[in-house]
Amino acid sequence: MQSSTDIACLLRPESIAIVGASEDQSKFGGRLLRMVLRHRFAGAVYPINAKRDTLFDIKAYPDFGALPAVPDMAVLAVPQPSVKGTIEAAAKMGIGCGLIITAGFSDAGEAGRETEREIVSIAREHGMRLIGPNCLGLISAANRLAACSSPVLEIAELPQQPIGLVSQSGALMTTFFDRAWAHGIGFSHGISVGNQADLELADFVEFLAEDPDTQVICTYIEGVKDAARFVTAANRARAAGKPWLAVKAGRTEAGSRAAFSHTASIAGNHAVFAAVCEENGITLMNDLGAMMTLAASMVRYPKRTVKRIAVFTPSGGGGALASDALFERGFPLANFSESTRDVLHWHYSQGQANNPIDFGSRISVDPAKAAQDTVAALQSDAETDGIFVPVTMAPFMLTSEMALAPPSPFEGAAGKPALFTVEAGVTSDPLRALLRERGIPYTNTLDEAVNVWSAWRRHAQRRFFEKPARPDALPPPPAPGIYDEDASKAVFRRYGIPVNAGAIAATADDAVRLAAETGYPLVMKVASPDITHKSDIGGVAVGVASDAHVRETFERLCAAARRARPDARIDGVSVQAQVKGELELIVGARRDEQFGPVVVFGAGGVLVELLAQRAIACAPASTEQIRALLATLPIWKILEGYRGGALAVEQVVDAIARVSWLAADLAERTDCGFELDINPLIVGKSACWAVDARLRVE
Amino acid sequence: MQSSTDIACLLRPESIAIVGASEDQSKFGGRLLRMVLRHRFAGAVYPINAKRDTLFDIKAYPDFGALPAVPDMAVLAVPQPSVKGTIEAAAKMGIGCGLIITAGFSDAGEAGRETEREIVSIAREHGMRLIGPNCLGLISAANRLAACSSPVLEIAELPQQPIGLVSQSGALMTTFFDRAWAHGIGFSHGISVGNQADLELADFVEFLAEDPDTQVICTYIEGVKDAARFVTAANRARAAGKPWLAVKAGRTEAGSRAAFSHTASIAGNHAVFAAVCEENGITLMNDLGAMMTLAASMVRYPKRTVKRIAVFTPSGGGGALASDALFERGFPLANFSESTRDVLHWHYSQGQANNPIDFGSRISVDPAKAAQDTVAALQSDAETDGIFVPVTMAPFMLTSEMALAPPSPFEGAAGKPALFTVEAGVTSDPLRALLRERGIPYTNTLDEAVNVWSAWRRHAQRRFFEKPARPDALPPPPAPGIYDEDASKAVFRRYGIPVNAGAIAATADDAVRLAAETGYPLVMKVASPDITHKSDIGGVAVGVASDAHVRETFERLCAAARRARPDARIDGVSVQAQVKGELELIVGARRDEQFGPVVVFGAGGVLVELLAQRAIACAPASTEQIRALLATLPIWKILEGYRGGALAVEQVVDAIARVSWLAADLAERTDCGFELDINPLIVGKSACWAVDARLRVE
Repeated sequence: MQSSTDIACLLRPESIAIVGASEDQSKFGGRLLRMVLRHRFAGAVYPINAKRDTLFDIKAYPDFGALPAVPDMAVLAVPQPSVKGTIEAAAKMGIGCGLIITAGFSDAGEAGRETEREIVSIAREHGMRLIGPNCLGLISAANRLAACSSPVLEIAELPQQPIGLVSQSGALMTTFFDRAWAHGIGFSHGISVGNQADLELADFVEFLAEDPDTQVICTYIEGVKDAARFVTAANRARAAGKPWLAVKAGRTEAGSRAAFSHTASIAGNHAVFAAVCEENGITLMNDLGAMMTLAASMVRYPKRTVKRIAVFTPSGGGGALASDALFERGFPLANFSESTRDVLHWHYSQGQANNPIDFGSRISVDPAKAAQDTVAALQSDAETDGIFVPVTMAPFMLTSEMALAPPSPFEGAAGKPALFTVEAGVTSDPLRALLRERGIPYTNTLDEAVNVWSAWRRHAQRRFFEKPARPDALPPPPAPGIYDEDASKAVFRRYGIPVNAGAIAATADDAVRLAAETGYPLVMKVASPDITHKSDIGGVAVGVASDAHVRETFERLCAAARRARPDARIDGVSVQAQVKGELELIVGARRDEQFGPVVVFGAGGVLVELLAQRAIACAPASTEQIRALLATLPIWKILEGYRGGALAVEQVVDAIARVSWLAADLAERTDCGFELDINPLIVGKSACWAVDARLRVE
Repeated sequence: MQSSTDIACLLRPESIAIVGASEDQSKFGGRLLRMVLRHRFAGAVYPINAKRDTLFDIKAYPDFGALPAVPDMAVLAVPQPSVKGTIEAAAKMGIGCGLIITAGFSDAGEAGRETEREIVSIAREHGMRLIGPNCLGLISAANRLAACSSPVLEIAELPQQPIGLVSQSGALMTTFFDRAWAHGIGFSHGISVGNQADLELADFVEFLAEDPDTQVICTYIEGVKDAARFVTAANRARAAGKPWLAVKAGRTEAGSRAAFSHTASIAGNHAVFAAVCEENGITLMNDLGAMMTLAASMVRYPKRTVKRIAVFTPSGGGGALASDALFERGFPLANFSESTRDVLHWHYSQGQANNPIDFGSRISVDPAKAAQDTVAALQSDAETDGIFVPVTMAPFMLTSEMALAPPSPFEGAAGKPALFTVEAGVTSDPLRALLRERGIPYTNTLDEAVNVWSAWRRHAQRRFFEKPARPDALPPPPAPGIYDEDASKAVFRRYGIPVNAGAIAATADDAVRLAAETGYPLVMKVASPDITHKSDIGGVAVGVASDAHVRETFERLCAAARRARPDARIDGVSVQAQVKGELELIVGARRDEQFGPVVVFGAGGVLVELLAQRAIACAPASTEQIRALLATLPIWKILEGYRGGALAVEQVVDAIARVSWLAADLAERTDCGFELDINPLIVGKSACWAVDARLRVE
C-alpha cells in the first residue's frame, strides 16, 4: 500500500499522455484533450492517436513507444476492449498512474469484473496505480489540470478555493462544480473515483487531508470499499484539522438499489454507516448543494463554532418562515445579549428588537446606519455564533447591500459566519454578484440554508469519545453455537450483564425449591432446546405465586410442550424471578458486514414497533458514549424520570457497555458472524435485568 | 358582506386614482405610478399630486375634486397621517375601493389600530371596500394592472398563467413572482392583503375561486382572520374544482412570534390549522418555491392523480439521491408494468431496466430513440402517474433535450405530469430555457422537487368525509362547571362513551357491596371534589382483590386523604372495575379559539410523552374520518394487531365520535371554552373503557 505522499505525486503529474485523444468533440478523448489544453496544464501533454501528427496544433504520438519521455500519468479514453492492452503497455513503460475513463468493467457484470481484476493485477505487478475505471477524471484547479471531458469545464479559469471533492459519481461531481462556481465557490481538487478498482475514496481523502491546498474535504459516497481504510482516512482528516463532509446515497432501500445498479456499490446498512461517521468526525448531509455551501462557509470562517444564530431579514414574512424552518430542525435562535438589545431598541420599534430582526420594522432614519449597527451588534454579541440573512424583495432590500458596503461588518476573517439566502429571481442577481465579490456564501433556497446551518451545528457540537478501558475480569467469549435463553443468560451473567434470577428445574420438586430461593412472583417457561417460541405453544406462565401454583404450572407447561412437539427434548422448566420495572429496552449486537461489531439499543417490548429510533455504536463503546447516545433517544425522558424519579441509568449504561465488549470479543475471536438480542432489558429505579435473551455465534 | 362578484368588480377597476403619485423613484407612489404605466394598464390612470400638472407625460390632478370622473379604485401611497382624510374624501366621492399601501396602523401598535378602525368605519359608512393598509398592492396580469411599487416589476410584460396568489406578505409575493417568472411561471392576479382591515384573505380566495382567469390558488398565510370565512372560501374553491395551496408561517413557536411581530397576526394552533386545511381540501406546504412549481404543474397537467412516479435520470448518482429523498418522504417509486419492462429491456442492460431508470446504463445505439421510447413507455404505463427527471451533468445529459425535441413524449395536455430538476449551474441554462419553451415545470434543487411531488400526492390522495349523522339518543350537553372523575364519567356514559364500571361507596360496607356487583380486581380511589391529584396523596389503590382487602383499603384511602387535606370534603371512595387492555389512548376535546370544537386523539398513558403525534378533527367528526385519522398514527399498528389479534377499533372509533359530538354540543350551547380529557382510554380486544377523565365547561 502506497502512502498518501505517493498518491500526492500521482495526483500532481508533470506530464500526461492522453490515449484516445482526438479533436472529435463527440468523444470523451476529444473533449478531454481540449479541456486539458483550455485550462493550460503547465506540464507536458502527449496526445496519443495513431492517425494524426498533431491535434489542436500540438504534436500527437502514435503510441507510448514514440513518446520523448515517460509521462507521469496515462489517461485512457479508449474503447473497453483496448484498455487492458493499453494499461499493460503503460505499466511496462513505467508510467506511475493510469486514469481510466472507459466504462464497462465491474459496473457491467461478471465478465467486466474479471477484466478489471486482470488490469489491476497487471498494474500492481509494475507498481502502477489506477484511478477508475468508469470515472470522469480529475479536475485540479491547484495544478491547472482538467483531465475531464465535462462540458461544465467550458469556463475561462478553474476557480480555486481550499475545498477538495472526492466523488463516486462523475456526473454529480461536475454538476455541483458547475453549481458551486455559479456561487463563486472554487475547489482545489475534484476526483471522480469510478469503480475504485485500485485507488479508492479513502486514498484520495487521505491525500486531501495532507494537501496544503485543501482545508475542507467534501465527498459523495455510494458505498464503502474498505471500512478500515475509511476510518483511517477519517482519523487523518481529523488529525489535520480538516472537516470531512459527506453526502451518502443509499440511505433507503430505494436509494441502495439505485446506487448498486449505478456503480455496483453495496450501500451497506445506513444506520451503521451514520454511526461510524458520527464517531469518526464525518458530517453526513443529504444535500450536495448545501455541502458545497457549508464547505465554502467553513473556509471563509474557519474553526467557527455555530450553535445559536441571529436571523436578520428585510421582510417579516421571510423571517417567520426562516424561524419556522430552523426551529423544526431543532436549531435555536439566539437570545440576544443586553448590549445588542440596547442597539436594536434604538433602531427598531418596541417588541420588534428581537430575533428574527425584521429590518422593515426599523424606526431610525438612516437605513444604512441601521443595517451597519445591527450587524455590528450581532458580531459582538456573545450569545450569537452566526448571522443568517434570508433576503426577500422587500421595499428595504437594498439594505442588505448597505450592510455589505465597505467597510462591511460582515467582512473580515475574524467575523462571525454569515449566510445569505437570496430567494428572488433575476432581480436579485446584482445582490448575488455583490455577495460573490465579498466572498459571502449564499443559497437560493431556504431549505439549503437550513441544511447548511444544521450540519454546521452538528459538526460544531460533535463529541469524540476515548477508546474505552476493558472492564476487569471479563471471561473469554463464548464458543460458536446457538444459545437458548438460559444459556445466553449464563454467558451474559459471566460478562457482568445483570439477568433476572432463575434456573432450570428438572422436576416439580426442584421447581418449588428454586422458587423458595428466588421468591414469588415467578415466571415459568418450559426449557427445551427444540422450542424457540415458547409462548406460542402455551409454554410460558407469569405471576406464579405459591408452591401449589408452581407444581401445577410445572406439569401444565411440560404437558403443553409434549402436546405441541411430541419429539422435542424437554429439559424441565425455567423458574425465574418476575421482575417489575418502569421501562423495557432492547439491546442487541451483531457484526456489521463492513464495519465489524456494533451494539444497538433503543425502546424495547411493545415500543419496539412504535419507536423505531435506535442508537448504534461501534463495539467496544465507552460508557460516556453510550450515555450520550441514550440521551438522543425519545426514551431518555423516561430514563431521566420525567414522571417520578430517574431510573437506573448507570446500570443500563454499564450493561450496554458490557454487551459491546462481548460483541468486540466475539468479533476478535471469529471472522464469522454473531448476533445477540436482549429484549426486554427491564429497567427499574435502581436496577435493570435482561429477562429474555438469545445469542448465536457462527 | 359583499359577494365575491362584487369583489371581482373591485379587483377589475376600469379607472384608478393614485394618491401620492410622483416621478420620484425613491418613493412608493413614484415607483407605483411608473409600474402602472410601464405595464400599460388599459383603464384611466389619474395621478394625484398637488404640485405637478403632469407626471411621466400624463395629466396629474391636485385632488379628487379635480378628477373628470369618479375612479373605480383609489390607491393610497401617502404618509400615514394623511390616510384617514384621503379615505374619507374618496369614500364621500363614491370611489368603490381603496388600496392602502401606507403602513403604520395595526401593524404598529394600539394608536395605529385605533386609526385603522376609524378608517374602516368611514369606508363602510359609504359602501367603500379597502385592501390593506400596510400592503404592497395588486398585480393582475389578467388586467394588465401593476398597482405595486416592487422592483421585480421591471420586466417587459407580466407573464400570465391561471394561477392566483393571495399573500399576507408583500415582500414574499414579489420575491416569488420574480422567482416564478424566471421559471416561466406566470400569474393571473397577485394580491398583497396587508393588515386585512376590511377585505381579507378569504375574500380574495373566493374571488379567485370564481375568476375565469384562475385555475389554481396559492396563498401565503400568517394568521387567519375569520375561521368561518376561511372554511367557506375553501368550500368555494373546492366546488369550483380549483386546488388551493398554502404556505403558513408560524408553524412553530419561533415562527409564530416572528409572524406576530410582522403583521400582528395570531398564528393560532398550527396542528388545528393543519387539520382544518386537510378537512377542507387546502394543501399545506412549507416551501413557497415548491408551491409555485406545483401550481404550474397542476395548470400544465390538470386534474392529474399523482401517486407513483417514475424516475428517469441521465446519472446513476442523481437517481440514487432522488430515490432516497422520495423514499424518505414516503413517496413510492412505481413498479413498472410488463409492457414498460419490455421496452426498457431493449434499451438498457439487464438489472438496470428498473425504477429509477439510469439513462447512462443504456445499451441501445441511438440515444434519441432510447430517450423517446423510454418516456413514451412511461406515458402509457398504467402503474406510473408521473415522470421525474433529475438532470445532472452526465455525459448523456443532452438526451434530456433529445426527449424534449418535438414531437416530445413529455408534451400534450393528455400527457402525464413531468417535472425536471436541473441541478447544475449556468451550463444547464440552455436546458432550462428549453423546458420553459416547452412549458415543462422544473426546479433547481432536489428538495424543492420532492416537496412538489409530495404535496401533489397528498392533494391527490386526500379523502373528504361527509358530515356525520347525529347518533340517536344523545342527551343535552352538561352545564358549566368543573367535573371530577366520577361526574365526568357520568356525562360520558350518558353520551354512550364506555367507561369502566364503578360507583362511589360512602362506607366500607357500601364498597364491599359495590365490589360484588363489579367483580374483582378493583381500583379504588378516594372521592373528593377538593383533591385532584389523588395518587399524589396516596389516594389510589389498584389490584384490590378480596372483601377484606376492600375494607382495609377503604379506611386507608380515607385516612390518607384526611391526613393530606384535613379540610377536604370526602364523599367516600370510588370503587371501579380494574380493566386490562393492550393499549392506552388519550382522547381530548376543546374549543379552538379560531376554529371551534376539535377532538384530539393519540397514544396515551406512558406513551403520551414518547409519541407526541396526535390526530385532530373538527367536531363533530364522522366515524369514517376518525378511522382514517387513527390509521395515520404510529399506534395504528397495535390497533390493527401486528402482534396478536386486532383490538377493538370500532369501539374506539365510536367512542371518539361520541366525544366529538359532546364537544360539538358544548360549543353550540356556549360561547365559552371547554376542555375534556380521557387518559387513558384503555383498549382491549373487544372493548374499550375511559378509566380516567376530566371535564371543564366554562
